[in-house]
Amino acid sequence: MTLADLAVRLGCRLEGDGAIEVVRVASLEEAGPGDLSFLANARYAARLSDTHASAVIVHPSVETAPCARLETDQPYLAFAEAVEVLTPPGRPTPGVHALAAVDRSAEIGPDVSIGAFACIGAGARLGARTIIEPHVVIGGQAVLGEDCHIHAHVSIRDGVCIGSRVIIQDAAVIGSDGFGFARRRDGTHKKILQVGRVVIEDDVEVGAQSAVDRPAVGETRIGRGTKIDNLVQVAHGVHIGRNVILAAQVGIAGSTVLDDDVVMAGQSGATGHVHLGRGAKVGAKSAVTKHVAPGEHVAGIPAGEVTEWREGVVLIRRLPDMKKDLADVEARLAALEARLK
Amino acid sequence: MTLADLAVRLGCRLEGDGAIEVVRVASLEEAGPGDLSFLANARYAARLSDTHASAVIVHPSVETAPCARLETDQPYLAFAEAVEVLTPPGRPTPGVHALAAVDRSAEIGPDVSIGAFACIGAGARLGARTIIEPHVVIGGQAVLGEDCHIHAHVSIRDGVCIGSRVIIQDAAVIGSDGFGFARRRDGTHKKILQVGRVVIEDDVEVGAQSAVDRPAVGETRIGRGTKIDNLVQVAHGVHIGRNVILAAQVGIAGSTVLDDDVVMAGQSGATGHVHLGRGAKVGAKSAVTKHVAPGEHVAGIPAGEVTEWREGVVLIRRLPDMKKDLADVEARLAALEARLK
Amino acid sequence: MTLADLAVRLGCRLEGDGAIEVVRVASLEEAGPGDLSFLANARYAARLSDTHASAVIVHPSVETAPCARLETDQPYLAFAEAVEVLTPPGRPTPGVHALAAVDRSAEIGPDVSIGAFACIGAGARLGARTIIEPHVVIGGQAVLGEDCHIHAHVSIRDGVCIGSRVIIQDAAVIGSDGFGFARRRDGTHKKILQVGRVVIEDDVEVGAQSAVDRPAVGETRIGRGTKIDNLVQVAHGVHIGRNVILAAQVGIAGSTVLDDDVVMAGQSGATGHVHLGRGAKVGAKSAVTKHVAPGEHVAGIPAGEVTEWREGVVLIRRLPDMKKDLADVEARLAALEARLK
Repeated sequence: MTLADLAVRLGCRLEGDGAIEVVRVASLEEAGPGDLSFLANARYAARLSDTHASAVIVHPSVETAPCARLETDQPYLAFAEAVEVLTPPGRPTPGVHALAAVDRSAEIGPDVSIGAFACIGAGARLGARTIIEPHVVIGGQAVLGEDCHIHAHVSIRDGVCIGSRVIIQDAAVIGSDGFGFARRRDGTHKKILQVGRVVIEDDVEVGAQSAVDRPAVGETRIGRGTKIDNLVQVAHGVHIGRNVILAAQVGIAGSTVLDDDVVMAGQSGATGHVHLGRGAKVGAKSAVTKHVAPGEHVAGIPAGEVTEWREGVVLIRRLPDMKKDLADVEARLAALEARLK
Repeated sequence: MTLADLAVRLGCRLEGDGAIEVVRVASLEEAGPGDLSFLANARYAARLSDTHASAVIVHPSVETAPCARLETDQPYLAFAEAVEVLTPPGRPTPGVHALAAVDRSAEIGPDVSIGAFACIGAGARLGARTIIEPHVVIGGQAVLGEDCHIHAHVSIRDGVCIGSRVIIQDAAVIGSDGFGFARRRDGTHKKILQVGRVVIEDDVEVGAQSAVDRPAVGETRIGRGTKIDNLVQVAHGVHIGRNVILAAQVGIAGSTVLDDDVVMAGQSGATGHVHLGRGAKVGAKSAVTKHVAPGEHVAGIPAGEVTEWREGVVLIRRLPDMKKDLADVEARLAALEARLK
Repeated sequence: MTLADLAVRLGCRLEGDGAIEVVRVASLEEAGPGDLSFLANARYAARLSDTHASAVIVHPSVETAPCARLETDQPYLAFAEAVEVLTPPGRPTPGVHALAAVDRSAEIGPDVSIGAFACIGAGARLGARTIIEPHVVIGGQAVLGEDCHIHAHVSIRDGVCIGSRVIIQDAAVIGSDGFGFARRRDGTHKKILQVGRVVIEDDVEVGAQSAVDRPAVGETRIGRGTKIDNLVQVAHGVHIGRNVILAAQVGIAGSTVLDDDVVMAGQSGATGHVHLGRGAKVGAKSAVTKHVAPGEHVAGIPAGEVTEWREGVVLIRRLPDMKKDLADVEARLAALEARLK
């Protein structure tokens, strides 16, 4: 594809030779002739000078580049589109693999692909063009919308309801039993059957090995456009709004509510029954233990206002000095007091 | 089922119209006519007034309710039983799916169900009525007791020994190799073959994507009635007692011992070779680095007495002020000292 | 095997009766007649006196033992070898299981074993003697070297390149999509197709349920001899050097670089785009947020020099006292100042 054609496709302003043939997207460091690269963050503009890319996607504020440029206000978005144009994803041939086990009562939409050894339970429904990779297990009465892509070894348990264009990475589990037990007087734990619903709305992505539990009553819900990274725990009865971002290894305990646009960074957690308001941000490794106001940015263990935490936590390393200084001040003060008695 | 019959089944005292038909258990918020709800914690009694449930399970101390009541000292336990009565779990038809791979030397008890694409290794034994969902892999010589329920994509490796009424959620791994290496002088790591045993006693539940490793020598053991949530790591040679609770994303390093009734909250961890005494409690996100006495409640990084930690950790945010105050005091003191020289 | 023969195999100096028959390796506590045990750490020499082992592997500095001894400077390494000699691992019969789905364009080396329900994609290549356990899914064009052992339920996605003697424990995922999204002006997130490479070099081990993501451009790479425990997250574009150790539940965010010999302890994490120098060590639960110098030992949240952190963090519990002492000093100082006005 010529750079001129690509500029039109991506809605970028072209500066340089539009006849250049571009065949691949690559990072600034590894790019060579024929590659299109990108500078997502104008802070790193110095890296541009060393690239061997044939062209780069940049913000108009970037002053120089050693090659042709595609200018746009949103270089990262244009890069995302360029990957799609230059590396169109293949997709498996529609049809059901001879070695899949599809219950005869399942409803399979047009142009669905079902891979080897996939299991589709009784009464399950798959929307048009959905791709079920090998070794996926879909329980009875589960429903998936159109254009989903469910990767290998995913478990979708009975009755789970999944929207359209949902992507689930390998070995994630949707609809496993919530962790609910009632303690008997003898110290043993009685299991509470988890028979509630799990709903995953349109355009959600769930990472590899993440788990979304089913509650005893009511539902666990993940809102439209929310993206969940790998190894994330979403407990029973959690309600997650739209366009939320959960980074890897985040854990959210039972019945907690995340409103739209919340962002939780890696390895952070939220205790049960708390509410994170719209657009709240949680720092990496933080532990949310109480409600977070809309738009608030919190960090720490326990999580609280982020700047306060950052300014305080660096002083932990100064505590031995502070303790010594305090003892020193106390001794000097005692000496003065003694003199003046 | 009438409310009167249910009261008898649950051992509750009925107050209200026993002829009401109850068909479902639901939360206070979503309950409607025909639904039974519950108030597990008397603190939230105010929520009762808005429910549309036909009946609620409550503690006798709760004063009013807008509907019929089932009174009991243990409302959460009665709720657990009500779910079972009103939503009896289905179970797959006994028998071996035509597409399962069961070694001919495996011993399969009466009324066992084995799902599609399950693999049962040579010499494995499955007790009566155990349910093996699709895509479970059970290694050679592994033993499972009666009435177990092993969900899809679980790996149970060779020789693992599992008791009766054990539930393992999807994609958990039991008996993977412990993380054991001997460092050579050249900096490379020689694998130590992990050929020890894994024993899971009766009535244990293991969550989705949790891992229980096998040791090089000796055994890893999980005691009767212990409940483990999702994404938990139990390393090689760990010994866990009875009725222990491990919340999601907990990690326990090699050879650590947890006595009966220990509770570890979400994302907490314990280093290797430590001992948590009976009934010890570990707060969320905490890092246990040394022995914990029976009944002790610890929290923090590193974990120690919980109240001390909680009172200290909130002052981290005050450290910049304390530092400034300390400098101020020091300056004022120096001024006084100078005057009095 | 006689102890004399074993001494020769392990390169140890024998002290005691070389005619003893040794059949098993066991821990000091559980060893009985016929068992070989070991003392990896001379600190625990007191435990030797109670063992019923027939022989022990010890460092020459250990003075007494109640049984025959195999002396070596590296007892842990000798123990590792003894396990191999006395418990030689079985291996499945070479060949392809009748219920495996192997694409006809895949190249399968000599003496490869492929288990039931394994899927091998188009154009994939497996080196000699590699073992593919049941339920492994290997994507199209993926390459594995010789003598690998891939356990059940592992996903190796399209085009992933794996060296020789690589071990992957159950349910790990190699080559899942990196967590890359570009935010649109309306707050929704556009997926960036992740079409980069994943390379795992020779002699790597990856633990159960760990995930190694594929980047959008460039590669994710794990260097030769690196060992990764269970439930570890390796994000897109991470570069890991040789002989690195990542303990359980570690998380490494995108594009971070770990040089050779780095060690990260359990539940620690590193943010994106940072560099850990050769031999750097990260304490358990720590959060690396900036570059770490070669050989540096860091701990804490955020991570910094380890001794400073350890000495500071224990004083968090003293903060209420320090605050009170500071207030007390301030009051006494104010009183003095007033007197001297």
